[in-house]
Amino acid sequence: MPEVVFPLDSQKKFTEQRIVGHNRWHPDIPALVQVKPGDVFRVHCREWFDGAIHNDDSADDILNAPLNQVHVLSGPIAVQGAEPGDLLIVDILDVGPIPQEDSGPLAGQGWGYTGVFATRNGGGFLTEQFPDAYKVIWDFRGQTATSRHIPGVSFTGIVHPGLMGTAPSHELLRTWNAREAALIATDPDRVPPLALPPNPDGAILGNLRGEEFDRVAAEAARTAPPRENGGNQDIKNLTKGSRVFYPVFVEGAKLSMGDLHFSQGDGEITFCGAIEMGGFMDLHVDLIKGGMETYGVSENAIFMPGNVDPRYDQWLAFSGTSVTLDGEQRYLDSHLSYQRACLHAIDYLQKFGYSDIQAYMILGAAPIEGRLSGVVDIPNSCSTVYIPTAIFDFDVRPSATGPHKIDPGQGVPVAKA
Amino acid sequence: MPEVVFPLDSQKKFTEQRIVGHNRWHPDIPALVQVKPGDVFRVHCREWFDGAIHNDDSADDILNAPLNQVHVLSGPIAVQGAEPGDLLIVDILDVGPIPQEDSGPLAGQGWGYTGVFATRNGGGFLTEQFPDAYKVIWDFRGQTATSRHIPGVSFTGIVHPGLMGTAPSHELLRTWNAREAALIATDPDRVPPLALPPNPDGAILGNLRGEEFDRVAAEAARTAPPRENGGNQDIKNLTKGSRVFYPVFVEGAKLSMGDLHFSQGDGEITFCGAIEMGGFMDLHVDLIKGGMETYGVSENAIFMPGNVDPRYDQWLAFSGTSVTLDGEQRYLDSHLSYQRACLHAIDYLQKFGYSDIQAYMILGAAPIEGRLSGVVDIPNSCSTVYIPTAIFDFDVRPSATGPHKIDPGQGVPVAKA
Amino acid sequence: MPEVVFPLDSQKKFTEQRIVGHNRWHPDIPALVQVKPGDVFRVHCREWFDGAIHNDDSADDILNAPLNQVHVLSGPIAVQGAEPGDLLIVDILDVGPIPQEDSGPLAGQGWGYTGVFATRNGGGFLTEQFPDAYKVIWDFRGQTATSRHIPGVSFTGIVHPGLMGTAPSHELLRTWNAREAALIATDPDRVPPLALPPNPDGAILGNLRGEEFDRVAAEAARTAPPRENGGNQDIKNLTKGSRVFYPVFVEGAKLSMGDLHFSQGDGEITFCGAIEMGGFMDLHVDLIKGGMETYGVSENAIFMPGNVDPRYDQWLAFSGTSVTLDGEQRYLDSHLSYQRACLHAIDYLQKFGYSDIQAYMILGAAPIEGRLSGVVDIPNSCSTVYIPTAIFDFDVRPSATGPHKIDPGQGVPVAKA
Amino acid sequence: MPEVVFPLDSQKKFTEQRIVGHNRWHPDIPALVQVKPGDVFRVHCREWFDGAIHNDDSADDILNAPLNQVHVLSGPIAVQGAEPGDLLIVDILDVGPIPQEDSGPLAGQGWGYTGVFATRNGGGFLTEQFPDAYKVIWDFRGQTATSRHIPGVSFTGIVHPGLMGTAPSHELLRTWNAREAALIATDPDRVPPLALPPNPDGAILGNLRGEEFDRVAAEAARTAPPRENGGNQDIKNLTKGSRVFYPVFVEGAKLSMGDLHFSQGDGEITFCGAIEMGGFMDLHVDLIKGGMETYGVSENAIFMPGNVDPRYDQWLAFSGTSVTLDGEQRYLDSHLSYQRACLHAIDYLQKFGYSDIQAYMILGAAPIEGRLSGVVDIPNSCSTVYIPTAIFDFDVRPSATGPHKIDPGQGVPVAKA
Repeated sequence: MPEVVFPLDSQKKFTEQRIVGHNRWHPDIPALVQVKPGDVFRVHCREWFDGAIHNDDSADDILNAPLNQVHVLSGPIAVQGAEPGDLLIVDILDVGPIPQEDSGPLAGQGWGYTGVFATRNGGGFLTEQFPDAYKVIWDFRGQTATSRHIPGVSFTGIVHPGLMGTAPSHELLRTWNAREAALIATDPDRVPPLALPPNPDGAILGNLRGEEFDRVAAEAARTAPPRENGGNQDIKNLTKGSRVFYPVFVEGAKLSMGDLHFSQGDGEITFCGAIEMGGFMDLHVDLIKGGMETYGVSENAIFMPGNVDPRYDQWLAFSGTSVTLDGEQRYLDSHLSYQRACLHAIDYLQKFGYSDIQAYMILGAAPIEGRLSGVVDIPNSCSTVYIPTAIFDFDVRPSATGPHKIDPGQGVPVAKA
Repeated sequence: MPEVVFPLDSQKKFTEQRIVGHNRWHPDIPALVQVKPGDVFRVHCREWFDGAIHNDDSADDILNAPLNQVHVLSGPIAVQGAEPGDLLIVDILDVGPIPQEDSGPLAGQGWGYTGVFATRNGGGFLTEQFPDAYKVIWDFRGQTATSRHIPGVSFTGIVHPGLMGTAPSHELLRTWNAREAALIATDPDRVPPLALPPNPDGAILGNLRGEEFDRVAAEAARTAPPRENGGNQDIKNLTKGSRVFYPVFVEGAKLSMGDLHFSQGDGEITFCGAIEMGGFMDLHVDLIKGGMETYGVSENAIFMPGNVDPRYDQWLAFSGTSVTLDGEQRYLDSHLSYQRACLHAIDYLQKFGYSDIQAYMILGAAPIEGRLSGVVDIPNSCSTVYIPTAIFDFDVRPSATGPHKIDPGQGVPVAKA
Repeated sequence: MPEVVFPLDSQKKFTEQRIVGHNRWHPDIPALVQVKPGDVFRVHCREWFDGAIHNDDSADDILNAPLNQVHVLSGPIAVQGAEPGDLLIVDILDVGPIPQEDSGPLAGQGWGYTGVFATRNGGGFLTEQFPDAYKVIWDFRGQTATSRHIPGVSFTGIVHPGLMGTAPSHELLRTWNAREAALIATDPDRVPPLALPPNPDGAILGNLRGEEFDRVAAEAARTAPPRENGGNQDIKNLTKGSRVFYPVFVEGAKLSMGDLHFSQGDGEITFCGAIEMGGFMDLHVDLIKGGMETYGVSENAIFMPGNVDPRYDQWLAFSGTSVTLDGEQRYLDSHLSYQRACLHAIDYLQKFGYSDIQAYMILGAAPIEGRLSGVVDIPNSCSTVYIPTAIFDFDVRPSATGPHKIDPGQGVPVAKA
Repeated sequence: MPEVVFPLDSQKKFTEQRIVGHNRWHPDIPALVQVKPGDVFRVHCREWFDGAIHNDDSADDILNAPLNQVHVLSGPIAVQGAEPGDLLIVDILDVGPIPQEDSGPLAGQGWGYTGVFATRNGGGFLTEQFPDAYKVIWDFRGQTATSRHIPGVSFTGIVHPGLMGTAPSHELLRTWNAREAALIATDPDRVPPLALPPNPDGAILGNLRGEEFDRVAAEAARTAPPRENGGNQDIKNLTKGSRVFYPVFVEGAKLSMGDLHFSQGDGEITFCGAIEMGGFMDLHVDLIKGGMETYGVSENAIFMPGNVDPRYDQWLAFSGTSVTLDGEQRYLDSHLSYQRACLHAIDYLQKFGYSDIQAYMILGAAPIEGRLSGVVDIPNSCSTVYIPTAIFDFDVRPSATGPHKIDPGQGVPVAKA
């Protein structure tokens, strides 16, 4: 096992650990850990809500999830010699649930969860259809996930970190705050909100205290969105064996990570979230000095996925176009067309006996593919969602004999908003 | 060879063939061809501009492309016994360039093209960056494509029909026309237009003549967008071996197809288009009676991709978020985030010596993957584009030694708008 | 379509064609066709028995197959500039059944066959268990094969040439004849024979006539075995997109090919054979001058398989060791251990209702994998055979509920030896 | 982490552990561990030589390897309710190097080895060409292996147990001993030996002591060969996610496992061995009562490989036929033809600068594929070996420019026999 440079004790809260991480982005959060280019090391990661979500059959915890406190991140980790303008190479050597612990109260101890927020808490991709809070518990057995809330489904997880990134510079942070504030200002009372402004309430900033804490907490960006530093990209393909190249904006790069997922479908459409868990990452880092300019990579992370993803050969695919459910034609709206594709898949799965929310949860958690198939055929974009047929223990393909009917069982816990 | 139920003679214009197809959607275009469930048959397809685009080094033909005349489609083909409410099964047994003809003036005779329209003609996915008309010619050798306009690149084509679908009912057609007219009305003078209304100019409607022609031409929907009947979905994964299930809206289903692509990247971002060609399709059809209700498939085509797509194991991926180039924050706009991902890829490839338009053309034609990676992390969606590294004959990965520099050669023909 | 340099008219016998090929290896068979490095061209290929095997329900034709007349090969094709010591690059751009002909009396016209010889004619891999002659007819639909003789099975063909190679030098030919004669001499009356000596009876040698024919026919090697020139390798992975490098032993290389297979399992265990058919190959050739020495490739063909093989993700595998059915322990005999693995698979499939010969035929024709898993663990080698589960239209996996029983239907035609 | 039912302390010898395993097969070795159908549990495994092979640059340890003491196996584990005639289902949920230990003197602590025995100790697949003892050390980083003894190569390991199986019945054991003794008797003084008879010297038999130990030790079968109970199959595809079905010959099944490999090429041609390591396995077991008869699985293990194997898309392949290096023609000898294919690959790789033994070691350790391509084309069988081109950090394909030359570095440690 590589040296654990950022350890977490499962018996303790995130803020009570020997090294305390953070849940906001800011260049001035101190790096309490330092590594060198070429180093291999292990980082423990806490599930994003630090244990607020439980392995039970109620969605009350999702309804009341402490949104100000996410995502609890491991880091920042300073990489010796990293300077603004470099590219930071991060190899994901391994990633998985909490090692040596397969039962316990923390997601990652042999289980994980997929949630959907109530609309007032942020909702999900299909919040108009699913306005309440919902939760599904998944059990891990090796690399396979099953759920007592969704019968007839099991799949090989596509394990990855939902969130990893470098610290922004002061200038970049100002840019983020300005552009997001401008968006919020267009509809400040919207539910769900358009974006999340800095919020000192619930902020965790490593070992910062006192006035410095207050200053940083007032400016620090929330971790929900992906941005130029990578961040909460929720890219399901950042699996074991992947190599990521991050722009470096500050001395030492200040790398942080968290929000581990046992599995996720493209889009993380359930928002809260994929299959959430705590766990560990084994990383190797290196630098390409001046690489941002050399390779033209200055405002996004680029990456090479690994070669041990779960392999499926047969898929059932659904398409959607950019027409709303009310029949309104939108112009090349790929977000909408992906929603329609997902809704079509949900309609279909219901014919096999699943409830609508069970079908939604499958799309959020299983390694489905979501593709931007057509983006130019005015006025309709065309998005497609691909479900591996082998994740069902019955034949899910259309045929002249009609759909096999499953027993939906106890179904998905819901908490009315 | 299966029986050719819809033949095309490469020496003749589309309108001079023994059986004349169509380039508009309307339930009253007569089906001049009839097949039975269980039949296997061959259909010839003309490239979508019926030969207006030439194998040369000028983009003038793209600049002056006759947009009113697309897409020339083979069909409608009536399927005996098909009734509204059924699902029509279409198996794509084979699809390829014009058989037995590997040289000649028609795209599909051993070559194909990728074009980008000038903005006033519809532009492309990145029309703000690329406002003129551009064209690239690709040569086919077996299943491999190379271009004299883009050195250092070759790839296995992912051959598929860009467009296939059933005829709309009168009611569905009215819905289309109404919702698209409403969209156009929001900005009727926009360049490029928001949508294309019915246009009798250039309409081809099989053997309709006289008043009936005029009536249908005035109502018939344009073929550019994908809609509830499938249509111009431009899904690169509808390759050989795929099975598609189309809703049936009219007696006989009235299946039509065309717009064959030798290859395409997800999104067909170049618009005009993938690698365009004429060719053939070998099809098998069958019916699931009442399948629309049985499977909840009433307003989209669903499908199962084939298992002989080109296989690549190493990818270089770029992400984008929903922030405009001007720095404006948009709310969960996956269309924009895919644009930004593509632009990031173009920035990167330029560091290897490609011009920006060469890089754009690669993304349009090669079998790249475009994924909706994150669609909920307010306010930023995250889209990703994956390029197979093996399509380049040099090492395209980032490294400490810096990028290999190619000679871009003569480059991409352009016609100033 | 590339230029057809070696045409075949399906209405005529192999020996009545405008250009006549050959069915023996000899350096002095004239090359009636010439191509240049860089050329792309098409070659027609006749099925290996030149039409002696019929699309019917009798195995009499297999029992009486004219073994002296195989394999009818297309060629030799001289490659301009090729000299002994070069490596000949052959790209398989495309390969398939007889183009534009999907019905007729020739294998390759929409159908193909798998046969097993009676023991006295050469038998097959499992001739002790299957001593008679057997035949199965497969129908092609696109790239899919099904058989009226084997219900419940369909698969995507892995199309390839069973035989391709360059001409031997006189010296190499002498080596072949000497070493094979020495083997035959160890048991000259064995049934089946240990090897096949030169045999003028039935020899076809291009346009050779008279004394020269007699001289060459007396020396020319039979085409059954693979040898240093490639030849009848029956490698199922030489599919579309493959690049092969052949040693060049004579001026012009004298490339020949034939024995096309619509599909085959590793080993071609049924011997007569895979799914046999006539068809076409589109080829591109080039040279690496002096490549035999440069790359140490002097007595075998090396190759790079294509990337569009049929893709399966779930396999059921059987192992075997080098113990005979009579319980005799052999020393590291991988041939025997593969026989035992295949017999184990046949035992298993019979529990689902297949006859033993049906199961054998599936292993011969479907794209199964045969691997040399362990070759050092004295005294037992371990071979394994992998069957894709998706080729069955029922669940073929073991489970607590027991095997699904199929109706074996009319079964496999047999002709008693 | 599942409960560890068979723990190993890395600080102690195999025989000093709390629960002592075994290194011979016999039905009377007591099962000190018991599990139930449905259980999930962890087993620690020691590397097969119990630490006798060191992480250094000498091959003396291989030369003097204590062959009588292998393989140290974890078990037997009794499965409640298992009776002769059942099939034991074993799911390999996870398998990997020693958890939480990435440095230390034991193979599996961050490193592993590939060895080749001297001929007198058993040799390897190519012992005529490589008569001495050789050793290569591999370093693990995540799932990737590299070696200081073989520059320019790195690959994703295909982790699996080399050995797993159930206990034989008394009758089956007698059969083994009789048939192997008969083989040995044909050439009792052969070097290397034809097989290994029972040998009390070095036997480890769990907690057996005294007379019972002596009785069992005198009868117990050696673990080198695979047999009807599975055993040392060295199947590289028994990776994470695999499901294996073993025949049950004794009450409780008595499952044992060991000989973990970080990676291996088909055949384990280096014999000593793949990339050897200690580590852990997470297993789930279940029963199919009476399954041996129901499924016709009575004398071999059958299995379904997992779906997360390393994925490579481009391969360079070499073929071989059953002609000896001395030019003697053998009859359909797939063992020989695989040797020739491997030797051809070794010849080729030497042209790039590798020594012959470096090339041999690559074939033994990297995830190469070995296939029985043709097994019927008398007199030559055809075997093929496929090397993934991506494991080299240079272009290993043949081209007109000739091979890239690597610096072979310090090379492979050898100990003269």
